[in-house]
Amino acid sequence: MSLTVVGSVAFDALETPFGKRDKILGGAATHFSLAASFFTSVNAVGVVGGDFGDDEWAVFKRHHINTDDIEVVAEGKTFFWSGRYDYDMNTAHTLDTQLNAFETFDPKLSENSKKAKLLFLANIQPTLQKQVREQCPDAAFVAMDTMNYWITSTRDQLIETIKVVDCMIINDAEARQLTGEPNIHKAAKKVMDFGLKALVIKRGEYGATLFTETGFFSTPAYPLESVFDPTGAGDTFAGGFMGYLASQNEVTDEVLRRAMIYGSVMASFNVEKFGTIRVDGLDYPEINQRFREFKRMTHFDEVVFERATSA
Amino acid sequence: MSLTVVGSVAFDALETPFGKRDKILGGAATHFSLAASFFTSVNAVGVVGGDFGDDEWAVFKRHHINTDDIEVVAEGKTFFWSGRYDYDMNTAHTLDTQLNAFETFDPKLSENSKKAKLLFLANIQPTLQKQVREQCPDAAFVAMDTMNYWITSTRDQLIETIKVVDCMIINDAEARQLTGEPNIHKAAKKVMDFGLKALVIKRGEYGATLFTETGFFSTPAYPLESVFDPTGAGDTFAGGFMGYLASQNEVTDEVLRRAMIYGSVMASFNVEKFGTIRVDGLDYPEINQRFREFKRMTHFDEVVFERATSA
Repeated sequence: MSLTVVGSVAFDALETPFGKRDKILGGAATHFSLAASFFTSVNAVGVVGGDFGDDEWAVFKRHHINTDDIEVVAEGKTFFWSGRYDYDMNTAHTLDTQLNAFETFDPKLSENSKKAKLLFLANIQPTLQKQVREQCPDAAFVAMDTMNYWITSTRDQLIETIKVVDCMIINDAEARQLTGEPNIHKAAKKVMDFGLKALVIKRGEYGATLFTETGFFSTPAYPLESVFDPTGAGDTFAGGFMGYLASQNEVTDEVLRRAMIYGSVMASFNVEKFGTIRVDGLDYPEINQRFREFKRMTHFDEVVFERATSA
Repeated sequence: MSLTVVGSVAFDALETPFGKRDKILGGAATHFSLAASFFTSVNAVGVVGGDFGDDEWAVFKRHHINTDDIEVVAEGKTFFWSGRYDYDMNTAHTLDTQLNAFETFDPKLSENSKKAKLLFLANIQPTLQKQVREQCPDAAFVAMDTMNYWITSTRDQLIETIKVVDCMIINDAEARQLTGEPNIHKAAKKVMDFGLKALVIKRGEYGATLFTETGFFSTPAYPLESVFDPTGAGDTFAGGFMGYLASQNEVTDEVLRRAMIYGSVMASFNVEKFGTIRVDGLDYPEINQRFREFKRMTHFDEVVFERATSA
């Protein structure tokens, strides 16, 4: 099944304890597309400026990502984000945000993008997300992200958007903020009650949790001794998750569980190098080997306890 | 195999958003023994005052816990701890600590307690832990807990104790504090390097992680919408973990993994009611049902990704 993603394509500047980069390829739609491209055909919808160069386009081309719907505003500049990570690498401190061409982003979907069976609405203004969803009546499984800014400033529109999608992929702080519930399981129930089929809560170094109408599934994160650059980890997770779903014939509970693992696998690679470098250079044996490692690190035999006869 | 635990037996006073109790049975050795008693024979070693009453002894007796080595200081009072949990229930705020009879606790092990094949050194002064360990030459698997206070004030003695045990069961903050490593996997490696066979890192609502010489295993916590009273959850985990190990013929990687789940199962029950009430009233069908739920919430089929022929 084909997959369309709508979101930011950007340049990032980063400072981490491991080094500094002035201008590297980033953006939610970029990280998502790259991860998803290992599993399915991806249409990326976004906007860039005239400064988006051959090296950047080459990353998309290498992975056969359809960029027909990435609009080029020749006289404009590409969305720019600058951030710093301190020693613990858990929190991004934004140093600068220049929306540039992204400020007036008005997603225009070609017929090809509209026909996708799966759709991912990366973190953009909620009403824009809803408009995109409505342009894709054939989409059988639609997932969305959001962020603290939209939860605060456009809460009502955000909830209207949640009501027309099937799945949210958000982090635990966002789930708590959206519902006002400190307990993550109560928060999840309230988010599900907007009418979702599935909710994925990303928990950083603690892994990710899937809530569905019938069940609960949880996976740890891959054990990494060094997180090099966490930028884009959430979008890379979403790309692996949605890409794997698109590769399967139907979205069952079993398929969703494996999608959680493939999302975690792709995110674990993403953070090993700056920007898109690690995922850009991945191959299938590496992906499948790490999938098997997730199985090994979570498996136990279902042997229930029986009291010895003397008891 | 038999199991001995050395640690505190206490009265707790608690304030939580769900209610208040002035004087309920608590203490590390208490919570540990109760959880472990479902899996094996337990010898508890501790000290109480003359105020320790029939109702308290009855809890131990009901679960066939050997209390011969719980010394009674008739003229003294039992260790008393008072604490408050706020709305998020993650952090205990200590309001009062009265060591009482526990202040001069000098563990005296009977021949029976010394002969145990498994030994758990709950959170007491590290040199005392080491002395107990040396009294049990037959113990084939010895685990210990500790706390921030000992890491700061008796670091050298603590490390000498770690060197003579097989396993530590601590929380993530303690692992970071002990090693000065913010990354939990690097911290774990440094703790293992003291000579452990296994290290369990408890992560509260995020579950627990097992490190061994050859592998890594991680389990989520049971999804609870309400945590009623988290006091003793860590000791209850340790009781389920060590109790299950004692019920098996040998400590293999597979057995350790299931012990992690039984520890998590018992801890999940412990927090559902005040103090020891929930675990005191447990039965085997409940325990095994929750074990099966852990299997369901972590299981996925090992189906690696294969590209479609068209790709």
